[in-house]
Amino acid sequence: MLSFENDYNNGCHPSILSQLAATNDLQTDVYGFDHFSASAKQRIRQACECPDANVFFLGGGTQTNATVIDSILQSYQGVVAAETAHIATHESGAIEFGGHKVITLPQHEGKISATELRELLAGFYADDAHEHIVFPGMVYITFPTEYGTLYSASELIAIESVCKEYQLPLFVDGARLGYGLTSPASDITLPFLAHHCDVFYIGGTKVGALCGEAVVFTHGNAHPHFFSIIKQHGALFAKGRLIGIQFDTLFTDNLYLRIAHHANQLAVQLKQILTNKGFKTFIDSPTNQQFFILPNDVMETLSQHIVFSRWAPFDAQSTVCRFVTSWSTTEADLQFLENCLNDIV
Amino acid sequence: MLSFENDYNNGCHPSILSQLAATNDLQTDVYGFDHFSASAKQRIRQACECPDANVFFLGGGTQTNATVIDSILQSYQGVVAAETAHIATHESGAIEFGGHKVITLPQHEGKISATELRELLAGFYADDAHEHIVFPGMVYITFPTEYGTLYSASELIAIESVCKEYQLPLFVDGARLGYGLTSPASDITLPFLAHHCDVFYIGGTKVGALCGEAVVFTHGNAHPHFFSIIKQHGALFAKGRLIGIQFDTLFTDNLYLRIAHHANQLAVQLKQILTNKGFKTFIDSPTNQQFFILPNDVMETLSQHIVFSRWAPFDAQSTVCRFVTSWSTTEADLQFLENCLNDIV
Amino acid sequence: MLSFENDYNNGCHPSILSQLAATNDLQTDVYGFDHFSASAKQRIRQACECPDANVFFLGGGTQTNATVIDSILQSYQGVVAAETAHIATHESGAIEFGGHKVITLPQHEGKISATELRELLAGFYADDAHEHIVFPGMVYITFPTEYGTLYSASELIAIESVCKEYQLPLFVDGARLGYGLTSPASDITLPFLAHHCDVFYIGGTKVGALCGEAVVFTHGNAHPHFFSIIKQHGALFAKGRLIGIQFDTLFTDNLYLRIAHHANQLAVQLKQILTNKGFKTFIDSPTNQQFFILPNDVMETLSQHIVFSRWAPFDAQSTVCRFVTSWSTTEADLQFLENCLNDIV
Amino acid sequence: MLSFENDYNNGCHPSILSQLAATNDLQTDVYGFDHFSASAKQRIRQACECPDANVFFLGGGTQTNATVIDSILQSYQGVVAAETAHIATHESGAIEFGGHKVITLPQHEGKISATELRELLAGFYADDAHEHIVFPGMVYITFPTEYGTLYSASELIAIESVCKEYQLPLFVDGARLGYGLTSPASDITLPFLAHHCDVFYIGGTKVGALCGEAVVFTHGNAHPHFFSIIKQHGALFAKGRLIGIQFDTLFTDNLYLRIAHHANQLAVQLKQILTNKGFKTFIDSPTNQQFFILPNDVMETLSQHIVFSRWAPFDAQSTVCRFVTSWSTTEADLQFLENCLNDIV
Repeated sequence: MLSFENDYNNGCHPSILSQLAATNDLQTDVYGFDHFSASAKQRIRQACECPDANVFFLGGGTQTNATVIDSILQSYQGVVAAETAHIATHESGAIEFGGHKVITLPQHEGKISATELRELLAGFYADDAHEHIVFPGMVYITFPTEYGTLYSASELIAIESVCKEYQLPLFVDGARLGYGLTSPASDITLPFLAHHCDVFYIGGTKVGALCGEAVVFTHGNAHPHFFSIIKQHGALFAKGRLIGIQFDTLFTDNLYLRIAHHANQLAVQLKQILTNKGFKTFIDSPTNQQFFILPNDVMETLSQHIVFSRWAPFDAQSTVCRFVTSWSTTEADLQFLENCLNDIV
Repeated sequence: MLSFENDYNNGCHPSILSQLAATNDLQTDVYGFDHFSASAKQRIRQACECPDANVFFLGGGTQTNATVIDSILQSYQGVVAAETAHIATHESGAIEFGGHKVITLPQHEGKISATELRELLAGFYADDAHEHIVFPGMVYITFPTEYGTLYSASELIAIESVCKEYQLPLFVDGARLGYGLTSPASDITLPFLAHHCDVFYIGGTKVGALCGEAVVFTHGNAHPHFFSIIKQHGALFAKGRLIGIQFDTLFTDNLYLRIAHHANQLAVQLKQILTNKGFKTFIDSPTNQQFFILPNDVMETLSQHIVFSRWAPFDAQSTVCRFVTSWSTTEADLQFLENCLNDIV
Repeated sequence: MLSFENDYNNGCHPSILSQLAATNDLQTDVYGFDHFSASAKQRIRQACECPDANVFFLGGGTQTNATVIDSILQSYQGVVAAETAHIATHESGAIEFGGHKVITLPQHEGKISATELRELLAGFYADDAHEHIVFPGMVYITFPTEYGTLYSASELIAIESVCKEYQLPLFVDGARLGYGLTSPASDITLPFLAHHCDVFYIGGTKVGALCGEAVVFTHGNAHPHFFSIIKQHGALFAKGRLIGIQFDTLFTDNLYLRIAHHANQLAVQLKQILTNKGFKTFIDSPTNQQFFILPNDVMETLSQHIVFSRWAPFDAQSTVCRFVTSWSTTEADLQFLENCLNDIV
Repeated sequence: MLSFENDYNNGCHPSILSQLAATNDLQTDVYGFDHFSASAKQRIRQACECPDANVFFLGGGTQTNATVIDSILQSYQGVVAAETAHIATHESGAIEFGGHKVITLPQHEGKISATELRELLAGFYADDAHEHIVFPGMVYITFPTEYGTLYSASELIAIESVCKEYQLPLFVDGARLGYGLTSPASDITLPFLAHHCDVFYIGGTKVGALCGEAVVFTHGNAHPHFFSIIKQHGALFAKGRLIGIQFDTLFTDNLYLRIAHHANQLAVQLKQILTNKGFKTFIDSPTNQQFFILPNDVMETLSQHIVFSRWAPFDAQSTVCRFVTSWSTTEADLQFLENCLNDIV
């Protein structure tokens, strides 16, 4: 059944598959020291305009978040994040498993506010008992957020500014980074992002790869033994080439951004189809995740033809539903969705 | 340069690549709930003759060891293993990161002895102060061992017997399982192994896959929330199909054992070539890892033509070197090795 | 300078000191196996009317919370608590250090509501993705709360009922338990509390001891190796008699409740003195902690004569201040406070 | 029954008790900020001749070891210690609970050798795969050792020298420090020890206190947030004065060393009594722990009159037994022991 459930229910972009096949018979160094990984890292440094960046490849998002955060925080420190942040909600306690608290801030369409961040930090240091409290040790944001929304350039700079004021590293979870960078609503480019944070990751799994995320410590600021910390987290791939080849492909001929741009464009059309039918967005997302409020009877009937997520109840009669596009979504898929809706409404 | 450095310096077996390509356009469920993973699990249960087994797919060996061990042990317990066990030596402290001690026993060609295991356990419980000591909570062995050696069926049963006596789960790390099962020296089959331990894993990464290990809790004895424990360890693949498809292929038409059999056969030839030249084995391995003592000048000259591992110094004039075969090793590779040696010696 | 800063800025109740002196020359068993500890445990079981209770002595509150919680939770579980709970705020991340998330509920005068607890749990299990979320594994409440307030018997039973429905152990932090049990506003007795929770602790440090808390697993439900878990947490006293003697004394002739009753009575007088001067309570506490809103100029002047806590800013002109009574507070102390206020206001 | 079982089966030295009584009615600051603790720290800095030392008070040995080690090591590092070290054997895995491996060296009468330490470290860095291995991050020794033996000044300097070569902090566990410093066999003084290590602790519990150990970071090198790390470990005493007063007393008029000297002197007499009876020492300890090989029938009969430890079986007919003296041991106690032996042998 056709699925808009998420952006990782498919295989990889065909170019990646081709490249895996083309290189399969070669022998390479292992643990990420192969020349494909080296090439991919160099392409990423160039795309980020960060010649001194340290780049590492890991397998998935939760693993990346836990490994990066554990490498930065000291034991008595926690990570500041939105209450809706992936690390605060959907990682089965991976951050706490590493010994750290997720210190939450209110979310505003999935985002934290620089003002509230400053208040939290000022309040912490003003508290006479703060040596008894978990220290804020870094700040984590998602771009795009879990709701598909985006920080603007000025919002990012405002957060960066607070981080610098309190000497806290800023970490950007880019599990869906491409969709943020190529959104028409975005004024943030990859070099801009890299310039205004300390570490971020370029999500591969949800942007056309089989697996893999590229962590970028933007100014040579990776922990000197980050490799061992990766290994300790069980996150080191013996055949590191598997991820290296994928990112080498994604960062050749702009494939990474082209994949994301395609999905965003189809998301705009998808939004139009649903809006035309009179449905309201739950949140106005400018990226490849679209959140619509559907009457429950429509949702149930549509579910017989198409797969999508039931995000949360909206009220007694309706539900917030999520529709996601990806590299593999086609115009025909949207036509099928529209036809289904025409039959229902 | 031709490499015998290890069994994961190549791509995957061509059949796996074909199957990844053939299925790439399909949409599936995620997080391992896809039908390829379901099929692979069923094939594995059948191959193990364990209809009630719980099967899970993880990305790599260290990750698998840490996740399985953490799911079994309580906080005050440790895992008993040989002093040369992978978990004791080459996992960057992943077990300790999970809060557990690796309690070591002496190694005998990489193996523990049932007698010494029983002595350890009897001594522990005889100690009046044992409530101040880390409790042995499970036993870990590798098959084949880090030295390529194998437990015999009777040795396995003897260890199992001690484990049952002390009610300790027995976990077998099968990172190179296939090479053990198909060794002419082995009297252990997959169903036999599954019958005589509580949990083991079938190594994919080192036996022809791009990545992935299949954990088998042999009698439905997985932790009821092992899925969440996987997620907490950052070990859950969003596109779980990536590993599911690989194991589905490996367990179709006996591919897994055929790959291992091929490598073992070439290892026998490789051993013959080196022996013919007058070199001695450091340890008599019946599997795909061969350890030879090479004079340092031979080692240096050979290194200019072929890649292999320098395992450890043997004496002032010679070094233990490791040569490894895999699915991708060919007779031509061995011929090349022989020619090189002919030129040197 | 006279201090109302807290209830642990003094030595121990004189009866404890006498008993420490009287027993000092005796040799005893160590690690809590001495006969004073045995006697104290028996007295506590009797006072709780829990003949099957497991009783253990630990050194302080944070240590006790961390050890008890770690002994109950599995790795993928967290502890549910009020957002103002001590474990959520003032323990430097001791719970996260043990690998567990504190899952917070809103606080109402420091208390959680059974209704909101049920909503949290129902919502968790209704969520299709809950296997990706930290599981609620136990519930933690404080009695009295961090604000000095008290659960009523019916509130406690309502929470217990939700816990039983979801099979979650209920843990009551009684760092100031005596002040709750002897408050005129309380309808909860020690046996009632013990009957309606799974584990609680009787705070010694803040109720007249030099150090020490008595953990009571009410129905023989301690982890079978809780002793080793204590040791692992560095919480085992070599001279266990130090705490055993103190609790043996506290539970002889009702000393524990008499100490608390004394402090509560003086807290009522203290509240009257401040109220008579026209100051408002920030929260209406029926126990030995009193929270008053003082104009900042009054606060500053009073601070020159008396020590008390500045809890939090109330508004631009006034501050919430905390005054605490204890076993050592005297009527003369209150008279001095009143005189100071007379001079100021 | 008279006991030589250990040095913590009694109360505290009478001077400590007097001082606790004399100060009981005073109000002080809490959490170790009281003036008794300040005075004790100053006395300790003077006794160590370390004016810049950071001094902290904790409750017990395991707690101190875990807190100090966790404050120094990074996640991928372990602590090097003798295979018989307390942290490797009798702390219920407290170090692993904090995420760290104890990397063991062979023991020689309880001690490590500087030569073997250097070999371990050189071997580690020479290993191409060392980034996959737990990094040695600090060195831990005990003074006296678990066998009552002592490092000489030159042995200590040799170990210090290796540590400096590899930039590893040297930590000395002084749970029984006094007995080492005052042994006639020792050429190490407190200032000498402090000068040749980075951090050590002065054991109180086993040298006359009710509880408490004094950690000394010898050159102002404590973690800047060691206070929070103590709190996170549940190791912070609310009534910090309890330990402060004890150490203030122990470091007044040389009490600490006088207690230890007394116990050592009686240990010499005890050794003479047993030797006169023809029993052999298992190890030649120059401190307050004496290890003798007793025939099993003697051991059983003597056990009816006197308490001592059965350390380990020696052979089928005899057992290693431990006799310990302390501040509270008297000449009359030794006379009683001698009389008992006269009746038996």
